[in-house]
Amino acid sequence: MAEAPLTPEERAVRRVAVGELGDALRDLVDAAVRTEVDDAQLAAAAVAARELAGRLRARRRELHEIARVDDPETGERWYSPVYGPGSPVAPPLVASDTPDGTATGRVTVGKPHEGPPGLVHGGVVATLLDHVLARALRAAGRGGLTATLTVTYRRPVHLGVPLLLTAEMGETVGRRTTAHARLVAEDSPEVVLAEAEGLFVALRAEQAADVFSATGRSVGAWTTRS
Amino acid sequence: MAEAPLTPEERAVRRVAVGELGDALRDLVDAAVRTEVDDAQLAAAAVAARELAGRLRARRRELHEIARVDDPETGERWYSPVYGPGSPVAPPLVASDTPDGTATGRVTVGKPHEGPPGLVHGGVVATLLDHVLARALRAAGRGGLTATLTVTYRRPVHLGVPLLLTAEMGETVGRRTTAHARLVAEDSPEVVLAEAEGLFVALRAEQAADVFSATGRSVGAWTTRS
Repeated sequence: MAEAPLTPEERAVRRVAVGELGDALRDLVDAAVRTEVDDAQLAAAAVAARELAGRLRARRRELHEIARVDDPETGERWYSPVYGPGSPVAPPLVASDTPDGTATGRVTVGKPHEGPPGLVHGGVVATLLDHVLARALRAAGRGGLTATLTVTYRRPVHLGVPLLLTAEMGETVGRRTTAHARLVAEDSPEVVLAEAEGLFVALRAEQAADVFSATGRSVGAWTTRS
Repeated sequence: MAEAPLTPEERAVRRVAVGELGDALRDLVDAAVRTEVDDAQLAAAAVAARELAGRLRARRRELHEIARVDDPETGERWYSPVYGPGSPVAPPLVASDTPDGTATGRVTVGKPHEGPPGLVHGGVVATLLDHVLARALRAAGRGGLTATLTVTYRRPVHLGVPLLLTAEMGETVGRRTTAHARLVAEDSPEVVLAEAEGLFVALRAEQAADVFSATGRSVGAWTTRS
């Protein structure tokens, strides 16, 4: 399907509705990974979930289509698996940034993203760090794809604890930019739980046109602002 | 709540039911992040999701409790966010391993785990690689927590493409073990899309008892088999 674009007013209204469904589905995901209801009730829930999925599929985007609520030029993605208000799989991170190349994120990770018992999955830690790194660069007009990501895990990161992530841009050479990020518990900000170094490479305009050709849209957020 | 443990037969039956609900919820998650139904239908879906969550919460585990379908001694987690059959947030990876310290994973990543438009999120790539690294070590009796993870992204990884991950254990020094992993598209196995080096550190028995104390269970999968 190719939907007509939304007006700014329609998009603002729809973003609220998408966020509310995302919130409800995150609640459902949490309930599902913690349930101990009996097997027959699990089966009944599966039927209900399939029915609901069918209703949502009445109008759906193809795999490479960009959501009408999104803005591919700024890179704000309403269904991001990290921070998307509409994403059932996002923890979700609540992030902000500044034009001089810093980013901050806050999140309390729950049972759906558990690795070892009671701890946040190491891959989820890497994902959260990757996002604030990329966001810091993009805020400074240095959008790019991750080229290398090095995560150092210093201490176990527990579920259910308010976490704070901070990132700042490092050096820029041509299309390559580095950044550093760290993760702490909000109530023990002096103890680093994990940190990351990232190297990001901006796509040239013609590369972006190639990589994102299937979307049929202009996608500017992963190139460098000139 | 503290549920009575399941018999092996009950656990086998329940694992099937958990997997079927997980499958239905992954279908719902995919439908939700691709839907373009109108705002009123989004609101109706949110109500239905909340109702379903309430039913599943009738009996639920606390944040640090281990699911009755799980085996914390082998580390098999039915709700893993990476490979868990019951996890609505897992891509899910289908993984296997060998006792000499190798692991393989297969997955086709869909819209819920999108980063840049049409591409797999870089954090999801890191998560998949982290899992096969850890799994290779654990299969060889070298379970541990990730200490460092370095991911090199060589080419964009597209949604909807069957992917193959392979990992093998490297060197072991005391409680520290390294491993290497790579990610390719199944139909172009000679082109490396991403690769990773990991360093894992096994917990000492007393550390494991401390880190996992909140679970109230013996958790052996992140220590080294003697």
